Amino acid sequence: MFYSKCRLSSMDTPVIIINVKTYEEGTGKKAVELAKCIEKVRNESKVEIAIAVQPTDIYAVCHATNIPVFAQHIDAIKYGSHTGWILPEAVKEAGATGTLLNHSERPLSMDEIAKGIERAHELKMDTVVCAGNVDMAMAVAALSPHFVAIEPPELIGGDISVTKAKPEIVRNAVNEVKKINAAVKVLCGAGVKKGEDVRKAIELGTDGVLLASGVVKARDKEGILKNLVKGII
Amino acid sequence: MFYSKCRLSSMDTPVIIINVKTYEEGTGKKAVELAKCIEKVRNESKVEIAIAVQPTDIYAVCHATNIPVFAQHIDAIKYGSHTGWILPEAVKEAGATGTLLNHSERPLSMDEIAKGIERAHELKMDTVVCAGNVDMAMAVAALSPHFVAIEPPELIGGDISVTKAKPEIVRNAVNEVKKINAAVKVLCGAGVKKGEDVRKAIELGTDGVLLASGVVKARDKEGILKNLVKGII
Amino acid sequence: MFYSKCRLSSMDTPVIIINVKTYEEGTGKKAVELAKCIEKVRNESKVEIAIAVQPTDIYAVCHATNIPVFAQHIDAIKYGSHTGWILPEAVKEAGATGTLLNHSERPLSMDEIAKGIERAHELKMDTVVCAGNVDMAMAVAALSPHFVAIEPPELIGGDISVTKAKPEIVRNAVNEVKKINAAVKVLCGAGVKKGEDVRKAIELGTDGVLLASGVVKARDKEGILKNLVKGII
Amino acid sequence: MFYSKCRLSSMDTPVIIINVKTYEEGTGKKAVELAKCIEKVRNESKVEIAIAVQPTDIYAVCHATNIPVFAQHIDAIKYGSHTGWILPEAVKEAGATGTLLNHSERPLSMDEIAKGIERAHELKMDTVVCAGNVDMAMAVAALSPHFVAIEPPELIGGDISVTKAKPEIVRNAVNEVKKINAAVKVLCGAGVKKGEDVRKAIELGTDGVLLASGVVKARDKEGILKNLVKGII
Repeated sequence: MFYSKCRLSSMDTPVIIINVKTYEEGTGKKAVELAKCIEKVRNESKVEIAIAVQPTDIYAVCHATNIPVFAQHIDAIKYGSHTGWILPEAVKEAGATGTLLNHSERPLSMDEIAKGIERAHELKMDTVVCAGNVDMAMAVAALSPHFVAIEPPELIGGDISVTKAKPEIVRNAVNEVKKINAAVKVLCGAGVKKGEDVRKAIELGTDGVLLASGVVKARDKEGILKNLVKGII
Repeated sequence: MFYSKCRLSSMDTPVIIINVKTYEEGTGKKAVELAKCIEKVRNESKVEIAIAVQPTDIYAVCHATNIPVFAQHIDAIKYGSHTGWILPEAVKEAGATGTLLNHSERPLSMDEIAKGIERAHELKMDTVVCAGNVDMAMAVAALSPHFVAIEPPELIGGDISVTKAKPEIVRNAVNEVKKINAAVKVLCGAGVKKGEDVRKAIELGTDGVLLASGVVKARDKEGILKNLVKGII
Repeated sequence: MFYSKCRLSSMDTPVIIINVKTYEEGTGKKAVELAKCIEKVRNESKVEIAIAVQPTDIYAVCHATNIPVFAQHIDAIKYGSHTGWILPEAVKEAGATGTLLNHSERPLSMDEIAKGIERAHELKMDTVVCAGNVDMAMAVAALSPHFVAIEPPELIGGDISVTKAKPEIVRNAVNEVKKINAAVKVLCGAGVKKGEDVRKAIELGTDGVLLASGVVKARDKEGILKNLVKGII
Repeated sequence: MFYSKCRLSSMDTPVIIINVKTYEEGTGKKAVELAKCIEKVRNESKVEIAIAVQPTDIYAVCHATNIPVFAQHIDAIKYGSHTGWILPEAVKEAGATGTLLNHSERPLSMDEIAKGIERAHELKMDTVVCAGNVDMAMAVAALSPHFVAIEPPELIGGDISVTKAKPEIVRNAVNEVKKINAAVKVLCGAGVKKGEDVRKAIELGTDGVLLASGVVKARDKEGILKNLVKGII
């Protein structure tokens, strides 16, 4: 069954998360446009698709669409004197239902990851923690986020899907993560661009994919999204 | 003369900047409410008052009011692969006209300050760079921001205004900053709560004040704001 | 059997690691004196005791004694242009046989921990990675260091041994770490001061203890050390 | 007049500082060998030459030679619980007479620079603070180190001396630094390899040079050093 503005962690079905990074094509009005495009494909396909946007764009994207919106990062702080940091409560009030943490472009200390997960879960927000290899996916799983997203850094932004280039990494990540904490779901990313990459990811045991440039920098975003969801429906 | 949504750096008159930090009283809807209260006092008094809010609140505050809005921090990045960082272009598109940098709660390397100023000025955004003492105010002045805000860390959040506790620091900061770069304006902060603190700050040669808890945590925010502007009008 | 200048990771018997932090009592000549004192107790008791010293003291301590010497931190760099960072090869050439990593006073990103372990193991150096709770101990174990040292930060530097205050944390850490990687040994620390604390640590399943102020700041360092080893012999 | 083991900041004559970075050619025994080579040329030429080495090598280099030895970095900490950081007192006791700070490979916050200078000066150690351009050299000068070393990052490690590629940057840095604090001496670096580069640096108003690969990675280190000192004698 399909819910609008649901929390991804409560879904039984595979998910697709589109991370817009700080791409020009995913900033400000263009983030809102992309979110509307995602909303259309999501409504048509009933595939659960979320967007992870910059903190400055959470509010506008959440008020323009009904899709799940993720922050790209939160700091493990509470209300108080923390000028310049990203407060989980503020991210939630702006409308986000979850957050990425420890993206390879924003690495965190183990303590920051653990406390970031704790703060997000206190606020009933979803957590997707990134990891660059199987060992790190296992390490992250021990901290009990909702999702671990495994993305080999050498494949990020490239043309070959991790599911084709390193399927054994994805399969091992799923197996090892489940041994540590069966409740943690696994996503994979890096080079994912097509429905067949998504299908392969699911065959390898994941609960979906995390991707960025494949959609955000595509000329025909809607076409790409429609192709991606074919890997699930 | 009084402009709505002006850039503070283009004003000849003293300014007041309210930094909401990540206080509960300055997050989300409460940031918007506070901004509206500031707008009212600003319109009535014709004193230039700005607010510095969390990145998640810039959009809503800018769309609900007509006052100058500052970010609390930007990262010196450009469009691209920078998941989890704060893009100057995104801050600007959300509606901010300037940014704080190097707040004592968010210290930056000298290189990050220099590049942050450069990026903000490229986008025609105002820069307020914080410094904890006279030497650091001089150092910051050499990097040519629009404003240096001197805030002795030991007085931040306290009950005694820097203008009373350490007037010589404020006066020296003004003198030394002007020697290095006469175009850089000086603000002072820490413990500022009343119109007489603002008046004293201006007598000491500053172009205004940067304050936080004195307004944000006050029960009667409008009353405090009305009292503060009396130091200028 | 007892080896001089051995690698702790090759021992079957429990170990004691004394971290001198940057205490005055553990800097320069005093680090050398403390190391000699440790050497004496180590030789007499045949208990394996190592010292973790500041980078500037590794060379002198290694040339004055025959005990295993640990660095307190290494950066995961290689030979090259890294002015101001701590090169694993330099630490090894100065005489260290291992390193601490991720001490609560020097937290690292998960990637830095993984790469630091990799670099140390390339150089056949021992790794002791610190963790503040059971989840983090599990996470660290997934990265396969030789030792995980669990030290609840709230007990560090205090008077009550973790083995008395939170024995269940120590026991759980041992169980969970072994499930993830049975080859990883577990140390515990925080508040350890007496032989009975060491004995209790071993009863709880650890391979020894990591301690600091209990020895380094003691008036009678030799007396404390002699008492500690009684927990093992 | 020529002093052995002097503090560079007390010299009236130009100085040369060789930074070995973490080059293989400047680590461990090779650092000691290079220091001996420097000592020989220094004794013969009476030109003041210092070496900046890794923390692990300070002790051995200081005990094998009589030249001034610099750390590459210190942390602005005091005796205490700072596992894994670099204590100024430890650096001094190991034998260093000064430290580099804020090298482009180890950037520091403005507060860390200010406090690092303060800590070094408390211990009567020399400070050489690096800056990448004229603005940053001015900013650093406001913090009153003994030396500012200007090194345009784009020329570091290259074949063209900053004195040839950007003489105006060197000249401006000298002028602007002296305006802010006439007591601060200026060094320049990047691409410096020959005596004529050193001579030109001095003609431009500097008090000497900071260089790395030009000596450390040279096949004939003594030959290069002898050539460099010709720029001064």
